Amino acid sequence: MRYDISLNDLQQAGTRIQPYVRHTPLLPLPALRGDLPAALRLKLENLQITGSFKARGVFNTLLQLSPAERERGVVAASGGNHGAALAYGAWRLGLPATIFLPERASADRVARIAAWGAQVVKHGALWDDAHARAVEHAAENGSTYVHPFDAERTLIGQGTLGLELLDDLPELDCVLIAIGGGGLIAGMAAAIKQLRPQTRIVGVEPTGAASMRYAVEAGHVLPLPEVRTIADTLAPRAVCERTLALTQQYVDQIVTVSDAHMVTAMRWLWAECNQLVEPAGAAVIAALQSNVVDVGVYTHPVALICGGNAAVENAFAAYAV
Amino acid sequence: MRYDISLNDLQQAGTRIQPYVRHTPLLPLPALRGDLPAALRLKLENLQITGSFKARGVFNTLLQLSPAERERGVVAASGGNHGAALAYGAWRLGLPATIFLPERASADRVARIAAWGAQVVKHGALWDDAHARAVEHAAENGSTYVHPFDAERTLIGQGTLGLELLDDLPELDCVLIAIGGGGLIAGMAAAIKQLRPQTRIVGVEPTGAASMRYAVEAGHVLPLPEVRTIADTLAPRAVCERTLALTQQYVDQIVTVSDAHMVTAMRWLWAECNQLVEPAGAAVIAALQSNVVDVGVYTHPVALICGGNAAVENAFAAYAV
Repeated sequence: MRYDISLNDLQQAGTRIQPYVRHTPLLPLPALRGDLPAALRLKLENLQITGSFKARGVFNTLLQLSPAERERGVVAASGGNHGAALAYGAWRLGLPATIFLPERASADRVARIAAWGAQVVKHGALWDDAHARAVEHAAENGSTYVHPFDAERTLIGQGTLGLELLDDLPELDCVLIAIGGGGLIAGMAAAIKQLRPQTRIVGVEPTGAASMRYAVEAGHVLPLPEVRTIADTLAPRAVCERTLALTQQYVDQIVTVSDAHMVTAMRWLWAECNQLVEPAGAAVIAALQSNVVDVGVYTHPVALICGGNAAVENAFAAYAV
Repeated sequence: MRYDISLNDLQQAGTRIQPYVRHTPLLPLPALRGDLPAALRLKLENLQITGSFKARGVFNTLLQLSPAERERGVVAASGGNHGAALAYGAWRLGLPATIFLPERASADRVARIAAWGAQVVKHGALWDDAHARAVEHAAENGSTYVHPFDAERTLIGQGTLGLELLDDLPELDCVLIAIGGGGLIAGMAAAIKQLRPQTRIVGVEPTGAASMRYAVEAGHVLPLPEVRTIADTLAPRAVCERTLALTQQYVDQIVTVSDAHMVTAMRWLWAECNQLVEPAGAAVIAALQSNVVDVGVYTHPVALICGGNAAVENAFAAYAV
């Protein structure tokens, strides 16, 4: 499939969503223990509203709905970051939102989404079940289904993070980006490569959920026979044609990391930067620590910390009063 | 006691420590839930090296030791942020360091300090016991005892955060700062008021450990009859003459917050900003949420998040692989 998104659309999206999202900090990382390259910077997108980059795609979608579409509301299936971002966006813009979650979604996640006033519906054992029911619900009610990655407005919204990163650091010469459904890397890579083609773009997937590498190797989208990783936000069974096409065109390399390396990287981010992040947010650090990628030759490398919604209920238990 | 620190000394300290500490981000906080003033910014000093502002005072001290003093090493008593910062500073500059901790210090904290190569000695039931032993040890060995707040170089080092904040936001008109021994607020207030006298400076103490307010009301330093708070890094029994004098001269108001409000504020910082912080780091947010201070009239108010070293071992347990 031939597919592309234009720089003009990306730039318009950046302007469109700017009042609704945060410009997140790019943190230089002066050598602490000296175990990662001194030039490495972290883009802390875990500080984004609702804790991940997802608010970007959500606002780029919601702000382009017609008044009639707004009134009929939005629907998504997600127990994770997309659901929280959509619930926040709908609250902020005054739209009704319904979020479908699999039955086993934690009370923590349900509460976080419901706190924004979204209707939460539990359905099915897996995300795919919740997704199927959400699509049905949207069709029955004339509401808009907002896909977490397989939608042009979503991709373009996530791509604004590429523009922001180049604003932060025009000399950017290498960036590591985690891959779930591929929406983030597809949008960012399209933005960055069109503005600065010499920047190296490296994707990072869990070894147990390498759906993009599987699709790239096959030359088309296909579901993984098995998905097994603690990084639940990087674990869709398959990417999509849009994200595959942009990855083929713009991404230089895809590497994989084990769950154990992601946990080590989570601990490192806490110990060195006091950032508690979900496994997906630490995947890029895991790639550096496990030496599957070497950024030592770059002068302005960035590791993108894409999300921070770790399970912390246990941590708060230590502070009962 | 008449006591002051000069702007010149503060500025020299800023230059001195600059290669060794991080310039931490000042995050605008675009209205999320709308429950705090939209103009409020957070200075995320929890992103400082070793997770709190303490590295500033430590480097300002260590970098002024003579070669002979360096060789004989440094000593402190601290199970908290000062101990971790001193261990890091000593590692970075190649000095021997010995940190005394009370017997009941958690394995987590011992590990964090020992990871920098410092010698860890457990002694006594309370910080005061560990402190007494540490002072003895320093005298016996000719090493330098580095006090967490009652030392001019430490105060001046912490004060560099005031300069940095004015660099970030020259229009600063109100800042909330937590008070433990008072080193941070004393140094910062001296820096800010000498450069911008119209900026309002508000100190925040735990209701159960309001040692600075107690001293201000008495007009001299004296120990609290009882200390009871979950904010262990804000819980010294008494402040000191230096920090009291600077507070009397430069701080406009001191307010107190309950432990329950600090925990609510910790949860808020996690839910809205994905920052997991220790109770002390959330105290300034607790002051806003409990309405003991109102920053609504200010156009450029800042809440200083002074430290992030929360107990997270339980959180990582959720990610065993």
